[in-house]
Amino acid sequence: MTTLIARQARAAASAGVTIAAGGATAPVPPSIEGHHDEAMAVPAMLDALRRAEAAGAQAHVIACFDDPGLGAAREVVHGPVIGIAQAAMQVATMLASRFSIVTTLPRSVPIIEDMALRYGMGHALRRVRAVDLPVLSLEADPAHAQALLEREIMQARDHDGAEAVILGCAGMSDMCATLSAETGITVIDGVHAAVRLAEALAGGGYQTAKTGAYGWPRDKSHDLSPLAALRKPAE
Amino acid sequence: MTTLIARQARAAASAGVTIAAGGATAPVPPSIEGHHDEAMAVPAMLDALRRAEAAGAQAHVIACFDDPGLGAAREVVHGPVIGIAQAAMQVATMLASRFSIVTTLPRSVPIIEDMALRYGMGHALRRVRAVDLPVLSLEADPAHAQALLEREIMQARDHDGAEAVILGCAGMSDMCATLSAETGITVIDGVHAAVRLAEALAGGGYQTAKTGAYGWPRDKSHDLSPLAALRKPAE
Amino acid sequence: MTTLIARQARAAASAGVTIAAGGATAPVPPSIEGHHDEAMAVPAMLDALRRAEAAGAQAHVIACFDDPGLGAAREVVHGPVIGIAQAAMQVATMLASRFSIVTTLPRSVPIIEDMALRYGMGHALRRVRAVDLPVLSLEADPAHAQALLEREIMQARDHDGAEAVILGCAGMSDMCATLSAETGITVIDGVHAAVRLAEALAGGGYQTAKTGAYGWPRDKSHDLSPLAALRKPAE
Amino acid sequence: MTTLIARQARAAASAGVTIAAGGATAPVPPSIEGHHDEAMAVPAMLDALRRAEAAGAQAHVIACFDDPGLGAAREVVHGPVIGIAQAAMQVATMLASRFSIVTTLPRSVPIIEDMALRYGMGHALRRVRAVDLPVLSLEADPAHAQALLEREIMQARDHDGAEAVILGCAGMSDMCATLSAETGITVIDGVHAAVRLAEALAGGGYQTAKTGAYGWPRDKSHDLSPLAALRKPAE
Amino acid sequence: MTTLIARQARAAASAGVTIAAGGATAPVPPSIEGHHDEAMAVPAMLDALRRAEAAGAQAHVIACFDDPGLGAAREVVHGPVIGIAQAAMQVATMLASRFSIVTTLPRSVPIIEDMALRYGMGHALRRVRAVDLPVLSLEADPAHAQALLEREIMQARDHDGAEAVILGCAGMSDMCATLSAETGITVIDGVHAAVRLAEALAGGGYQTAKTGAYGWPRDKSHDLSPLAALRKPAE
Amino acid sequence: MTTLIARQARAAASAGVTIAAGGATAPVPPSIEGHHDEAMAVPAMLDALRRAEAAGAQAHVIACFDDPGLGAAREVVHGPVIGIAQAAMQVATMLASRFSIVTTLPRSVPIIEDMALRYGMGHALRRVRAVDLPVLSLEADPAHAQALLEREIMQARDHDGAEAVILGCAGMSDMCATLSAETGITVIDGVHAAVRLAEALAGGGYQTAKTGAYGWPRDKSHDLSPLAALRKPAE
Repeated sequence: MTTLIARQARAAASAGVTIAAGGATAPVPPSIEGHHDEAMAVPAMLDALRRAEAAGAQAHVIACFDDPGLGAAREVVHGPVIGIAQAAMQVATMLASRFSIVTTLPRSVPIIEDMALRYGMGHALRRVRAVDLPVLSLEADPAHAQALLEREIMQARDHDGAEAVILGCAGMSDMCATLSAETGITVIDGVHAAVRLAEALAGGGYQTAKTGAYGWPRDKSHDLSPLAALRKPAE
Repeated sequence: MTTLIARQARAAASAGVTIAAGGATAPVPPSIEGHHDEAMAVPAMLDALRRAEAAGAQAHVIACFDDPGLGAAREVVHGPVIGIAQAAMQVATMLASRFSIVTTLPRSVPIIEDMALRYGMGHALRRVRAVDLPVLSLEADPAHAQALLEREIMQARDHDGAEAVILGCAGMSDMCATLSAETGITVIDGVHAAVRLAEALAGGGYQTAKTGAYGWPRDKSHDLSPLAALRKPAE
Repeated sequence: MTTLIARQARAAASAGVTIAAGGATAPVPPSIEGHHDEAMAVPAMLDALRRAEAAGAQAHVIACFDDPGLGAAREVVHGPVIGIAQAAMQVATMLASRFSIVTTLPRSVPIIEDMALRYGMGHALRRVRAVDLPVLSLEADPAHAQALLEREIMQARDHDGAEAVILGCAGMSDMCATLSAETGITVIDGVHAAVRLAEALAGGGYQTAKTGAYGWPRDKSHDLSPLAALRKPAE
Repeated sequence: MTTLIARQARAAASAGVTIAAGGATAPVPPSIEGHHDEAMAVPAMLDALRRAEAAGAQAHVIACFDDPGLGAAREVVHGPVIGIAQAAMQVATMLASRFSIVTTLPRSVPIIEDMALRYGMGHALRRVRAVDLPVLSLEADPAHAQALLEREIMQARDHDGAEAVILGCAGMSDMCATLSAETGITVIDGVHAAVRLAEALAGGGYQTAKTGAYGWPRDKSHDLSPLAALRKPAE
Repeated sequence: MTTLIARQARAAASAGVTIAAGGATAPVPPSIEGHHDEAMAVPAMLDALRRAEAAGAQAHVIACFDDPGLGAAREVVHGPVIGIAQAAMQVATMLASRFSIVTTLPRSVPIIEDMALRYGMGHALRRVRAVDLPVLSLEADPAHAQALLEREIMQARDHDGAEAVILGCAGMSDMCATLSAETGITVIDGVHAAVRLAEALAGGGYQTAKTGAYGWPRDKSHDLSPLAALRKPAE
Repeated sequence: MTTLIARQARAAASAGVTIAAGGATAPVPPSIEGHHDEAMAVPAMLDALRRAEAAGAQAHVIACFDDPGLGAAREVVHGPVIGIAQAAMQVATMLASRFSIVTTLPRSVPIIEDMALRYGMGHALRRVRAVDLPVLSLEADPAHAQALLEREIMQARDHDGAEAVILGCAGMSDMCATLSAETGITVIDGVHAAVRLAEALAGGGYQTAKTGAYGWPRDKSHDLSPLAALRKPAE
């Protein structure tokens, strides 16, 4: 799946932009389906982001539709960090007044809904739909997956009044062009959207603000000293 | 002011991208301060957008911080249309968890607040501040304007807890780099942000969805025919 | 359609109240279906409002269910300005705890939903339904339109749990009494509601507040003078 | 206080409209300050409303700014029931984009805030302020009360950015004209606003919808019969 | 019904906890179905709460799913007051990410929805469903009621995506265990939930905060004295 | 700090309840200040929860005020999982209509605000205040910390209108009683609140719902098999 996503990311990038597809060096879940999987994947992801920035990366994309560890990621690097869900929803609101999202498992529906609310997209999100396939099955039987996705996309237009449909899993990335062509509907892939936005931000010289919630993690080695409480802590 | 904004837009664009700064061919208000000015400027703007697309423009930026006529603009062209307020707020939420906006006149404060709510940015927007200067005075006495802006930006950080500050008027565009350097705070200019996003969307092949709220304006010449009600209207 | 609406407005008014049905003197779209049509109609409408007030009008009704140019209109006159959508929703919330709206084209659904959110009616609005007829077809084949409206009104009660139904187009105004009688449901016409509220406000001596967002449009002839930035701008 | 409010209500009414100021026939709190007082006043108020309608009243105003028992009142009569808080806020949103409310005691501040949220006015309400005087003291020392109110109204404009100010207690009703004249600000009295709206609704033939939340209280004398569960209950 | 509820409350309580099931000493509606019934029941309930606290009660449960008079109740006693709707929703959000509620009559649907919004549960509440049975019929024909409830609970899971279902009437309390066992779904009874929370709060030494909205009802005997306005009122 | 928190948890528990204070067996940050620290602590916490349940724990408290990993925790155990922030806010809303929160560092302010919004507490939360001390300094110089907290609590009452104040860090737990006594204000400690609620839920037989977002983490060993896509996945 990392290979699949990297290929799509490279297709989305402009000439001259290099995509380094991060691989975790510690064991992580093979796919992310729910809060537990997210939590287990984040520490290795943060490590990978730090190493990528040290190796010259100017912006970072988290290629899982739950945007796991997005806040933490913004704390550990200078460059902008883009989650594919946030990116897809931002792009959707510039192209359409209402959108639906199609994801894999029903258990992800409330997770994605809550994320949309946190991003302020509640008014524009019509509905989160699930095809009820595990993430890895997208790769195992892509034809079956695509047929299910196509059906949901049509229903999103006809029943939800969606004007655009977001693919709610990075593993659907390579089906985006076909799904859009087959249905005649604006279909948005978060990997593609996030790579475009990452380029836009990095190329524009934007960096993560380090004065508040996304400040560097604190070094706590002096916090227990009796003097610590006397000085104004450097934030 | 159009010249000033065009210069900033060109500075934001990548190599190979051409910026055509639209000039209205019909009389419009010299600056936009409130709903009336917005309303009077939009018809000429829609005309300019249509002509720009006919001349080859692939994406469109509305360079007024009220995002006037954004929905209407999306109806009349194929290419993505980006308002500088929406762009600035989207960029801000990828870099910071909270932002404030500094605008010109107090009368624009509720207009900008309402727009932020419509865009789902209510949770991230700390406060809209006004320096109480007319738009055109930004150009007439830039040093005075810059001093007032600098003071508000510092207060946004210290009193509002803002991690980034958005400049709430296209006419402040050329002061952005200086203000950011002077204050040490992430300052975001909507013109710059919108040009970056417009490039990202156009380069990524995105177009406005034409199946709902942003569909082409309807031709009504047959609506009064007795047959009109019998056929399913083409939407 | 102007004639039809004027007749309904006069039927709604109390004895002694004169209704002047505004006609635009410049070319405007024959009906309003979407953001573009709104934008093209507003400048002429603002002109008509100013002339009406000069001719003695004490309150103003914008008789299009998108409430186009409502903020701009409030800037250019003293008297209260009432949009028929806002009026209908305010009346509905005094009579019922939940309502639905039936409009013409599907493209208007998100526009009306967003307007309801802006007015704080999100909790009370059950659903916006569309009969999928162009505005002008309401007049071209009223019997067909009425049958479609009746069906949607019944479904609003049975499926949405609506206790009242608002007609989401000024062109449906003359069917309100019949629809209410046929369905046994409280059906609210915005033209009627707005005329009642306009009378109530004008008779009560209310005027638009001119100290903020609805202040008079500014005269900018001195804004570029070097002195402009030195004086406290008159708001 | 009932006399004072009735006098203001009569001043607000049009020629030909009769105002009957309801007096409870059972013991009720002398003023309403908090949830307990509301709860103790409502049963007698419901009885008064029923008697008023039997005596010919066509619309009803609840002249306490907490709008106590508004839902219950709508269940027990045909005519529209208007709470003075809801009326004042509806009128305010037709005249201004932002308003503040000035009430008596600090304990009423969260009650009024919650009510404004319930009415969907959260976006337009800047702040609820309290002069920290008991309701009955408004009558005991009106000059002192008026001075405190004037100060809060000026602060609402200067610090809150309010364009209009609502008087948050029926007992302030008779000071409205003076306060508006002294401060130059649009000051709105709920009693006046509610009488205007009540007239507008009654004159327009509107009645409370009886098919849902505001249906008549149910007669339960047959609910325990074994047959009750078998028939479709008449709602 | 009081007996039924008391039995369920005792089953929920820990060893050593005494449940006193309050009976009103004044005439009240036999069941609560709508705002009117709530309003008529509250004064006697407040009296019962005061007497219960005088007799040693350390916490109080209002065993009607509309949580009638909750604010007023908190004003008249020291001990924590728990409404069964608030309790059930709080428990639900600790066990599940989404829940539905099944109540008796359709007229209660908007009342419960509004309450959920007030409690900040809008994001977690999927849908309020009604079996369309009067409250007292739950007791008159429990088998019929249980069959209807079971069907709605299954639909809440299958159509709403509810992970837990709340019983929206105290009279359903004794069916909770069976419904949960039959459907395999987490079913939550407000009486049970509220008794558990009441114990938790009382045992933890918590009391109602008396410095604001829930302060003791004021004694107004001196408010009309000319001196009253001169002193800072004791809040 | 673990010792301190365990002592407070035991003080909160009823007789007969055993508190096992979890210690991570893998390296975790010494305190949690921001998203990164949360993310790094969660995997070890999930492991500790699983072991605790295997050892007989019936309910689980996450004793960090960011409620880190709350969703993930609910996936990996049967027993109810309570975060101290959610617990404190739920208890606060049963005792007071408005509350403020006092935390350690300014960087935690937006994190706590966002959490309150997610929990639906936006209407009740007045303000999140920070004393600007690192977490570990609470223990290093408790007298200094307590003085700062006392000042903020008083300001929360006087400036925010808070009726109760929540301590926004588990490390403040042992100062709660003193702070409440010194200020006369209802001060709520999340550790205490969560232990009371955990007992209430466990004692009442409640368990986490396993049919949706909090279902067990999926075993993915067969997802890549070509058969996987053919069968209806067991959720």
